[in-house]
Amino acid sequence: MIVTNTPDVLNEEVADTALGLLLATVRHLPQAERYLRAGNWPKHGDYQLTPSLRDRTVGIVGMGRIGKAIARRLDAMNVPVVYHSRRPTDVPYKHYPNLIEMARDAHVLLVITPGGAATRNLINAEVLDALGGDGILINMARGSVVDEVALIKALKDKKILSAGLDVFANEPSVPQELIEMENVVLLPHVGSASIATRRAMDQLVADNIISWFAGKGALTPVAETPVKK
Amino acid sequence: MIVTNTPDVLNEEVADTALGLLLATVRHLPQAERYLRAGNWPKHGDYQLTPSLRDRTVGIVGMGRIGKAIARRLDAMNVPVVYHSRRPTDVPYKHYPNLIEMARDAHVLLVITPGGAATRNLINAEVLDALGGDGILINMARGSVVDEVALIKALKDKKILSAGLDVFANEPSVPQELIEMENVVLLPHVGSASIATRRAMDQLVADNIISWFAGKGALTPVAETPVKK
Repeated sequence: MIVTNTPDVLNEEVADTALGLLLATVRHLPQAERYLRAGNWPKHGDYQLTPSLRDRTVGIVGMGRIGKAIARRLDAMNVPVVYHSRRPTDVPYKHYPNLIEMARDAHVLLVITPGGAATRNLINAEVLDALGGDGILINMARGSVVDEVALIKALKDKKILSAGLDVFANEPSVPQELIEMENVVLLPHVGSASIATRRAMDQLVADNIISWFAGKGALTPVAETPVKK
Repeated sequence: MIVTNTPDVLNEEVADTALGLLLATVRHLPQAERYLRAGNWPKHGDYQLTPSLRDRTVGIVGMGRIGKAIARRLDAMNVPVVYHSRRPTDVPYKHYPNLIEMARDAHVLLVITPGGAATRNLINAEVLDALGGDGILINMARGSVVDEVALIKALKDKKILSAGLDVFANEPSVPQELIEMENVVLLPHVGSASIATRRAMDQLVADNIISWFAGKGALTPVAETPVKK
């Protein structure tokens, strides 16, 4: 048996979504949209001034292919980038071996590390504490990477400012406590969910099968696969 | 009398908002947020697949300082950029002297041109027709630049796909017909409305006044001002 995945074809799409979620969270875009649609603009005046990316450093947790695509976007926005990963990689940004230290120095944590046992509850109460009262958490990775109970408590206690989440511990169910909060942006795991990108992913699945039955092996076997092409 | 403005201090913030509005509109971020908050994810399954920036060229209408800051961001996202302005400027993107031709070739029109008489209703029915059924309009300029009646008709008749609007003809009032549409993202003119950027703008106003009363003239007089420093 061989297991394949669809690497790379979704990197740029997920990086787009990460940037959209980051901007939506920092600049309150869905909240401002709700305010307008509810008829509040003429009644209650301008929407409140919001936080900004202009005075923030973004700490990326996980500097794989998608992390790099996100960092490239932030570079172009003149937003300083730092990162945490187990080992430093070939990027020009400051590497923090210690996540707590990065959380202390950065104003946004953007999580895009793989899921699984190694990263379970990586973003815990201690990390959120270090991020601090002006800090923003963006999770584009897996729900398992963030201790959701600790996150809800940190938001309630104003230990951090706000959060943007594309993933949850128990999808598709989302804690009602989060849904009732105004200082969070909640997306139903739409990271790669565009027509164009899902079509490219489907095509790569088909190409893997065709290649396999043509005796050429799989095109994109996962690293753990026992069969080599 | 001398009139001053606050150039440059808001360019990057407005470019951030433009990118956020573009991503929110193309990838349906506020709609997906509403879907989740309404409890539809567990009940009705994943949110629909959306359009993407991955297969789109963005045509920027107006290549001034903010237009350039937006183009720099799109470059980093590997999104092809073209532009329309009265005269070509010092950028490496294809210039269209004819707006209709650009609307025909591009899949997004992002409007960031100055307001005023010269651009009133620049985006009219003919331009929207040329943009076409897969086309998306983003207006970050002034409400006056878009013929709002023609836009509403184009959206209703599916002559274009969707729109993201930060500005309106009659702010703060927004046509009820737009508010009732699902394929639009509507922001209450939040382009530069962050705490950090408004503080920088206030500071520049103060600096202008201080400079003036110190006998050094205004720092940032508008081009039309009759008094030179």
